[in-house]
Amino acid sequence: MDDSLLSGPENEADSFRDECGVFGILGRDDAAPVVTLGLHALQHRGQEAAGIVSFDGTQFSVERHIGLIGDTFTKRSVLDRLPGDRAIGHTRYSTTGGEGLRNVQPLFAEFAGGGFAIAHNGNITNALTKQRELQKRGAIFSSTSDTETILHLIAFSEKTRIVERFIDAIGQLEGAYSLVGLSQKKMIGARDPLGIRPLCLGDLDGAYILASETCALDIIGARFVRDIKPGEVVVITENGIESHFPFEKPSPRFCIFEYVYFARPDSNIESRNVYEVRKNIGMELARENPVDADLVVPVPDSGTPAAIGFAEGSGIPFELGIIRNHYVGRTFIQPTASIRHMGVKLKHNANRHMIEGKRVVLVDDSIVRGTTSQKIVQMMREAGAKEVHMRIASPPTMSPCFYGVDTPEKSKLLASRMSIQEMADFIRVDSLGFLTIDGLYRAVREPGRNNEAPQFCDACFTGDYPTVLTDQGGKDNVRSLSLLANNG
Amino acid sequence: MDDSLLSGPENEADSFRDECGVFGILGRDDAAPVVTLGLHALQHRGQEAAGIVSFDGTQFSVERHIGLIGDTFTKRSVLDRLPGDRAIGHTRYSTTGGEGLRNVQPLFAEFAGGGFAIAHNGNITNALTKQRELQKRGAIFSSTSDTETILHLIAFSEKTRIVERFIDAIGQLEGAYSLVGLSQKKMIGARDPLGIRPLCLGDLDGAYILASETCALDIIGARFVRDIKPGEVVVITENGIESHFPFEKPSPRFCIFEYVYFARPDSNIESRNVYEVRKNIGMELARENPVDADLVVPVPDSGTPAAIGFAEGSGIPFELGIIRNHYVGRTFIQPTASIRHMGVKLKHNANRHMIEGKRVVLVDDSIVRGTTSQKIVQMMREAGAKEVHMRIASPPTMSPCFYGVDTPEKSKLLASRMSIQEMADFIRVDSLGFLTIDGLYRAVREPGRNNEAPQFCDACFTGDYPTVLTDQGGKDNVRSLSLLANNG
Amino acid sequence: MDDSLLSGPENEADSFRDECGVFGILGRDDAAPVVTLGLHALQHRGQEAAGIVSFDGTQFSVERHIGLIGDTFTKRSVLDRLPGDRAIGHTRYSTTGGEGLRNVQPLFAEFAGGGFAIAHNGNITNALTKQRELQKRGAIFSSTSDTETILHLIAFSEKTRIVERFIDAIGQLEGAYSLVGLSQKKMIGARDPLGIRPLCLGDLDGAYILASETCALDIIGARFVRDIKPGEVVVITENGIESHFPFEKPSPRFCIFEYVYFARPDSNIESRNVYEVRKNIGMELARENPVDADLVVPVPDSGTPAAIGFAEGSGIPFELGIIRNHYVGRTFIQPTASIRHMGVKLKHNANRHMIEGKRVVLVDDSIVRGTTSQKIVQMMREAGAKEVHMRIASPPTMSPCFYGVDTPEKSKLLASRMSIQEMADFIRVDSLGFLTIDGLYRAVREPGRNNEAPQFCDACFTGDYPTVLTDQGGKDNVRSLSLLANNG
Amino acid sequence: MDDSLLSGPENEADSFRDECGVFGILGRDDAAPVVTLGLHALQHRGQEAAGIVSFDGTQFSVERHIGLIGDTFTKRSVLDRLPGDRAIGHTRYSTTGGEGLRNVQPLFAEFAGGGFAIAHNGNITNALTKQRELQKRGAIFSSTSDTETILHLIAFSEKTRIVERFIDAIGQLEGAYSLVGLSQKKMIGARDPLGIRPLCLGDLDGAYILASETCALDIIGARFVRDIKPGEVVVITENGIESHFPFEKPSPRFCIFEYVYFARPDSNIESRNVYEVRKNIGMELARENPVDADLVVPVPDSGTPAAIGFAEGSGIPFELGIIRNHYVGRTFIQPTASIRHMGVKLKHNANRHMIEGKRVVLVDDSIVRGTTSQKIVQMMREAGAKEVHMRIASPPTMSPCFYGVDTPEKSKLLASRMSIQEMADFIRVDSLGFLTIDGLYRAVREPGRNNEAPQFCDACFTGDYPTVLTDQGGKDNVRSLSLLANNG
Repeated sequence: MDDSLLSGPENEADSFRDECGVFGILGRDDAAPVVTLGLHALQHRGQEAAGIVSFDGTQFSVERHIGLIGDTFTKRSVLDRLPGDRAIGHTRYSTTGGEGLRNVQPLFAEFAGGGFAIAHNGNITNALTKQRELQKRGAIFSSTSDTETILHLIAFSEKTRIVERFIDAIGQLEGAYSLVGLSQKKMIGARDPLGIRPLCLGDLDGAYILASETCALDIIGARFVRDIKPGEVVVITENGIESHFPFEKPSPRFCIFEYVYFARPDSNIESRNVYEVRKNIGMELARENPVDADLVVPVPDSGTPAAIGFAEGSGIPFELGIIRNHYVGRTFIQPTASIRHMGVKLKHNANRHMIEGKRVVLVDDSIVRGTTSQKIVQMMREAGAKEVHMRIASPPTMSPCFYGVDTPEKSKLLASRMSIQEMADFIRVDSLGFLTIDGLYRAVREPGRNNEAPQFCDACFTGDYPTVLTDQGGKDNVRSLSLLANNG
Repeated sequence: MDDSLLSGPENEADSFRDECGVFGILGRDDAAPVVTLGLHALQHRGQEAAGIVSFDGTQFSVERHIGLIGDTFTKRSVLDRLPGDRAIGHTRYSTTGGEGLRNVQPLFAEFAGGGFAIAHNGNITNALTKQRELQKRGAIFSSTSDTETILHLIAFSEKTRIVERFIDAIGQLEGAYSLVGLSQKKMIGARDPLGIRPLCLGDLDGAYILASETCALDIIGARFVRDIKPGEVVVITENGIESHFPFEKPSPRFCIFEYVYFARPDSNIESRNVYEVRKNIGMELARENPVDADLVVPVPDSGTPAAIGFAEGSGIPFELGIIRNHYVGRTFIQPTASIRHMGVKLKHNANRHMIEGKRVVLVDDSIVRGTTSQKIVQMMREAGAKEVHMRIASPPTMSPCFYGVDTPEKSKLLASRMSIQEMADFIRVDSLGFLTIDGLYRAVREPGRNNEAPQFCDACFTGDYPTVLTDQGGKDNVRSLSLLANNG
Repeated sequence: MDDSLLSGPENEADSFRDECGVFGILGRDDAAPVVTLGLHALQHRGQEAAGIVSFDGTQFSVERHIGLIGDTFTKRSVLDRLPGDRAIGHTRYSTTGGEGLRNVQPLFAEFAGGGFAIAHNGNITNALTKQRELQKRGAIFSSTSDTETILHLIAFSEKTRIVERFIDAIGQLEGAYSLVGLSQKKMIGARDPLGIRPLCLGDLDGAYILASETCALDIIGARFVRDIKPGEVVVITENGIESHFPFEKPSPRFCIFEYVYFARPDSNIESRNVYEVRKNIGMELARENPVDADLVVPVPDSGTPAAIGFAEGSGIPFELGIIRNHYVGRTFIQPTASIRHMGVKLKHNANRHMIEGKRVVLVDDSIVRGTTSQKIVQMMREAGAKEVHMRIASPPTMSPCFYGVDTPEKSKLLASRMSIQEMADFIRVDSLGFLTIDGLYRAVREPGRNNEAPQFCDACFTGDYPTVLTDQGGKDNVRSLSLLANNG
Repeated sequence: MDDSLLSGPENEADSFRDECGVFGILGRDDAAPVVTLGLHALQHRGQEAAGIVSFDGTQFSVERHIGLIGDTFTKRSVLDRLPGDRAIGHTRYSTTGGEGLRNVQPLFAEFAGGGFAIAHNGNITNALTKQRELQKRGAIFSSTSDTETILHLIAFSEKTRIVERFIDAIGQLEGAYSLVGLSQKKMIGARDPLGIRPLCLGDLDGAYILASETCALDIIGARFVRDIKPGEVVVITENGIESHFPFEKPSPRFCIFEYVYFARPDSNIESRNVYEVRKNIGMELARENPVDADLVVPVPDSGTPAAIGFAEGSGIPFELGIIRNHYVGRTFIQPTASIRHMGVKLKHNANRHMIEGKRVVLVDDSIVRGTTSQKIVQMMREAGAKEVHMRIASPPTMSPCFYGVDTPEKSKLLASRMSIQEMADFIRVDSLGFLTIDGLYRAVREPGRNNEAPQFCDACFTGDYPTVLTDQGGKDNVRSLSLLANNG
């Protein structure tokens, strides 16, 4: 599903775009450099821009930059402008619409009671509705981010203390959010009541850490303490950590697609190892969709763990039949029209020597628009494959996500308008198999999907949205719109 | 052997640095854009800088840039300055010593008889000696590149026609070279008599191509015609190709390390597929150095094919126990001293969940200084591995290369000063095994090394240099010097 | 008073820093390019950053850049992002405190009733007080600019139509402001009731223009219509212009220092030509402070018109005895400490040949800290001047400005702590003479200062502030603080 | 003659472009920073690019940058790469033809006997002829600069010691040159036998300096010692200075146009002060071309000293009737075609208030193509001038320069194809007057031009070239070619 597989960036996206990553630390002298490393480990959750806000006991410092963490936040001059023993950071997928740095988080505001910074992973599904209410009351928005809506709700709260104001504000939110906030005295972490996005707690020699994934703890050798619970608000000061559950607790519905694609394989979420889940998926897939073939080839790199599982489950040898060129920057432009039409293999190349005359099983994580799958199947055929079978490590993706993932509108999702056989014809494979929804639940060690009370958010596969979608006119009215406005 | 494995670039290099890549095309209207793509596919042979020279029937155009091809040569403005139906290009590892663009190839000179450009992969072992002779005759050098020595030899030749002058010049060279030259009428390709570096011929709808590796043909859908032979000079014009063998032909001695590490897995060189050789290596290694263990873990990414072979040969499961962060730019600086001492895992992370309590076989391609291996073993131990066994997909590297590879001086090569057991203690593994030199020859489908007349250049393993090393005072006098001056 | 006269930018400022410039146009297809030219002509009012907001009938576009207009806004790509037949722009002196682009104007907000952009020249002396009130009501400030306070006052207004809301907001302001606003339908211009900062109305083939100075009309060949009057609000639409005087009208008090230094010599303000006023000043100065000397030398470039007037008035020849190096960028850093101590003449050089053995009258516009004057006198002495007399084209500057000019705090103003004789000793001149306040009024063709009802704001000379200074605790309580926070 | 007067850089040049400046110092620890300052003072001789070569007792360091000295060479990182107690530098007008940094001086070569750097102001009129000879002998040229020809002549010299080789080389040159060379032990200065370009010797606390103009001594407080004489070669070591006159001495012919336009007003050359000469010119011009008028207005900035002299000589008041916008970067692009056709006044504006109804004498330094004069006269008329008279501070420029000045080809010079009356009609003035050639000689304190043995090079006015022009086919064969290839 890696959409830039064979093509330059001028093409329409053919993947679910990663969401955002958040990271915060309190109680360590060089807080901002540590946040930089944490964000670096979360770079797969958002590659386009990042920001850090620190507090040094006297004042808040803000830096926001477009580009990879390793290129922007590792300069001494940048870090020197971020003093303090507490800091929070955010990395995001994109800066849409010429907005430049305005939408880069964390956002910061000077309230009457002092400064406050906030970083957000997720998407608020009633943000526009709330924004219109706030504007009528005199609020001025300087970004198009739903995170600014949260800030304004805090600003307009009639409560007194910052934690109360924060809880008052998030109590008005609907949708998915994992938040990290920073005031002069406190670092706050919060997850929405369904716990759709991840957030975990770590410890680095006594300093508290909040991070989207455990891999961001590993990079600095921090200890994993526990996941923040759905609906939980934790308030961290120099003196320790308090836990609040201000809202009634619904059943958790963590995003199951985090296991399929978004999270890093070495992260553990809710006591499950992501790599292991993906291998389980491959084994389930081999069981549900067996095929007689000569080799199992992963579509690099996201299909690799499932392909290893598939090979193990099926007994068919695992081979790197597609070689990836790691040097493709995100800016590679195919220089001329004549070259664009050559079908240039910028990013991957079939290893013809291994493929020629063979029956090949390709394993990929998902199919979005199908254009990438078409090209890769074509590449296999040109390399001489005798048969090409495609196995997909998830059920068909039929519905857009409103919870912080950038997905094409429904009508652009291949599975929303074709049967599996039509899809197989479209991408020109000899056979095509998807994992079932129950197979996916089994891969995460559930007996299957509990349709009465689903254990996860799986709306992209089932269309079963766990919240009202106010800005969309309610969940029965999901429009077929591009969701580029999603952010988080 | 990927030296930036766990560390930032401030550390000493702990790898054999890739050499250069060359690419040329004659007979295609958009020659420079095609060269750009070819160089992009050869980026693994040199990532720091690149250049292209084109000729449009009237004049030569030259562009040289520091940075990745995809960032520098894909701009329309750059390509618009490179018109013509013929062009040659070069990608190189580094621009040492503040020399900036002066050493970036292709080099170009205006001779009395017209312009000439040249791109070089290899290293001339009597270049300094020749340079001193030329300076005494009045030559002015504007770079420190051995390639400029070749240009001056052509300029001072007393022959008349450019091909004769070219042959006159290379007849004075000693060492390794694969050259691509461009005059107003001709594109010239040449390989040294031992054929140490690769060079192949391709065809794109009637346009001739010269390229370091076949993967550069694949990216543009060009047809592989044949390898240029050791000692061969090919002269290509609009009317066709001529082949010359101006020198007596010694037995070929292709660089066997190209198979181990340098070449891309999907390339075929001298009728062998690189990926397949590496898998063979893994199987030989499992046969020669068996071990009782729970899982085989590749050191990503260069150890992966051998690890797959090792797993297949040993029956031990293959697992991605180390996860790579693809977002590490080459510029990542660890921001503070305190963080530098944390042992930050910038580039790789152990997947603790898979490693804990297990007996692990790590497979890597080679050991140079050993510092990287130390760190990765340590990372495995911190992740809870019960035993750590290291298997290396080549014999111990004991001698520096003088043929176009940037290697540390001999005294810095761990294997030159330690026994295998001492090395095992140094990197703190439970067992350490290298491939034998005969095992390596078997992996390339030879019955073994013919010590009377070795089939390959394997000097880095054996110290058996196939040429005189004039600039070093002869091959019996190899000094323990840093070879940073090597280029090509 | 040009503070970078002989020194690099690392030194403390020794000048009154220029304020801001504003420009707007409605009714011309390529509005943004015209604004670019207008801002270019106003560059002397603010060199560090600029912004433009345009409206194309559907949406507002915003561009803000740090750097000179000619370098940042002349790129086609920037202008292409600013479509529309109406646009307003702003150029400003500096972006203090690492705030980067956040404080660059025009500021833009999306109100409940539609978008609104505003550009401001001046300074609101109760902005902080208002900001605190607004924050208590829930307003979030994203800049430290007083202009944002104006936006929030508009947002919180309980009036309905944008013009009413605008008037409601500015009715709460105290201080100096010349404002240009842009809504979907209207361009609004406003000057504070005292008319401290300039603003004029122009016409370009039927398109309306608002500009800080007439030189911004000249650059595009626009016709000067009239000055906007103190306390006037003009509302411009496609259908014409309306004028409002919503507040009681006090006597105008235009900033007299605009004539002395800020405005461009070719501008006309309130029916006076700036160059002519400066020549008049020089003649008054010669009359009030005669001296027997051989030549009159201007301190380039700001002292030149007064020096011409002084020469004309005194009959002493005018000579360019100091030569300016026009190539000093604002970034020139003196590279080493040893060089910094050499007293390097980066920007000006005495023409020794003309100076040696002569009695020289230097004419400068003002003395702020005196350090620049010291250096230039020293330069004259080293060039062999027999006598050095300094004549200043304004009265002593004794009080800081709170109306949009960046001045040092009172205690840093040389004239606030020394008598004229002490100042003469400090800068080491043979004689020093300032213009009297009445002489200055005569130069603008008034009979003298009407102390009962002064015709101008001359607070920097007299300490007589024409408004309450609420943020300073009232005008009787002017603190000796740096006023870096001033902006506008 | 300031060609960008009213127009953007897209127009054809309408001025004689400044030549190059050179500067060297030996015997001062921070040599490179001092050279930086010297080049900054010479920036008017070449604004596009600069270079410095230093030697620290062990090795030479080279830095070349495009841009203003103050932006490129003041960075600590740049200067830190230029250690040593001796250094030479060069600033140049332009980098024509995409050559980028290749043509930026000083050039450096590693000879058999050691390194040598050279910086050149002037132009060698047999450089191409010599280049062809050298190429036939095997020389490879890496730039198109005539300076490289000098380097090759040194390299091919059969003499032994560097000074002998240097003299051997320059003995083969024809044309104009002021050279500064640097070897490991010596700094060499040389002027061509006619002394066409300036070069002077200075002293800074015992360190020797060579510089194009005395203003480069003033900036660092160095003492002027003497001009280097025509045909002189000085060799400077730590032990002192030797003077050589290796060639027969013709009569000196210094470029008289240096006084008119190129040199800085505060420089003294051959015992004449440039500002004073320009004032003399103005007075001669008033005497030769009297006119009845109300005010004398300089075309800023190059016409100002002559205008002061004209005003003094004629008794007509001097006024700044044209105001210059100092913020025009060299990159200002007029953003749209419609704006380009508005006749936008980017750089200058008439001060209508002073001009309206007046009889104006404009004073400019020269007329090249006449297009700029046309525009400025038009601007005066639009500002309401009753009469416009133009007085030019030099004779008509009728012939191109081959000695280091970038001039249009002969056919583009207005004076080469029109009478004075035709020129007056072309630029639409009421009267036009040029200085006579004898008037110009009187302004430099000669009784007049000695036509038998002219005291100066005045070829641009007279067509009387003082050297053979070999590359042009001899001086009787001056082709009407663009001389963009000139450099120096």
